[in-house]
Amino acid sequence: MTMEPALQQKADDAFMQEAILDAARAASHGEVPVGAVLVHNHVIIARGGNAREREQDPTAHAELTVIREAAHTLQSWRLTGTTLYVTLEPCLMCAGAMVLARIPRLVFGAWDPKAGACGSCFSVHENAQLNHRIAVTQGIREDECRDMLQQFFQQVRHNRLAAIH
Amino acid sequence: MTMEPALQQKADDAFMQEAILDAARAASHGEVPVGAVLVHNHVIIARGGNAREREQDPTAHAELTVIREAAHTLQSWRLTGTTLYVTLEPCLMCAGAMVLARIPRLVFGAWDPKAGACGSCFSVHENAQLNHRIAVTQGIREDECRDMLQQFFQQVRHNRLAAIH
Repeated sequence: MTMEPALQQKADDAFMQEAILDAARAASHGEVPVGAVLVHNHVIIARGGNAREREQDPTAHAELTVIREAAHTLQSWRLTGTTLYVTLEPCLMCAGAMVLARIPRLVFGAWDPKAGACGSCFSVHENAQLNHRIAVTQGIREDECRDMLQQFFQQVRHNRLAAIH
Repeated sequence: MTMEPALQQKADDAFMQEAILDAARAASHGEVPVGAVLVHNHVIIARGGNAREREQDPTAHAELTVIREAAHTLQSWRLTGTTLYVTLEPCLMCAGAMVLARIPRLVFGAWDPKAGACGSCFSVHENAQLNHRIAVTQGIREDECRDMLQQFFQQVRHNRLAAIH
């Protein structure tokens, strides 16, 4: 599954672009724009966006949704040989789920300085107490991933102010 | 929602007994015996057991299942005013999900020294970096909760040895 670095970066870029499409779809439904795809043997086997508000489900983060869908597709709770692409650094719940699913590799776009669990606030991916390590690549299409989130929150603030005045 | 301590302990004991019943049901299906109930206004609004093997879903821990079911029942991702009872200390994924759902109180039976995230390996419930704290009561029916797990793993080892000889 290892690739020549330039090819790997090209593949990472293309899969992140797919995750960005799911983030944009989430935003169009009024959700915080986070999208994810799960890749197995160079093929996307699950994709989705944050759906917390639409589903009123606190666990409906993009990552958890694609992990559950991929496990269903592969008929296995062990997602060995997969890579998770997500536009925002995973939170504790999602990083914990990645460890449980034995996902070997994570690629994410933007940092989450408030709740990120793969380098920002916590480092679940390389915690010595857990029985699984996750290789992390950060910064793929970072500007686009971060800009989408910033624009979304600017719009939310704008709408709130407009509602007051 | 606060109760006189002796009454609270009696209620905790009764709700943990219900979680133990779900753990026993999980064991009867060959699952690691962990059960959970979620209580709102002194009433169980969601219950379930670990179903990872049956559903081949790495996220099908008892806690995550009851959180999703309760959110569906209350039609809200915010589970304020609820208490989660679980026979085993939650892992990182489940403790993270409790924070996301703003669950104010957790009662658990046995410690999980290998992966527990509410006092053993991590202390997600009182982490200063997160935007939510969870009050934790530990040790309710601890011996029963732990014995169930130990018996389950003893049986697994016994079956493995029997298969070899």
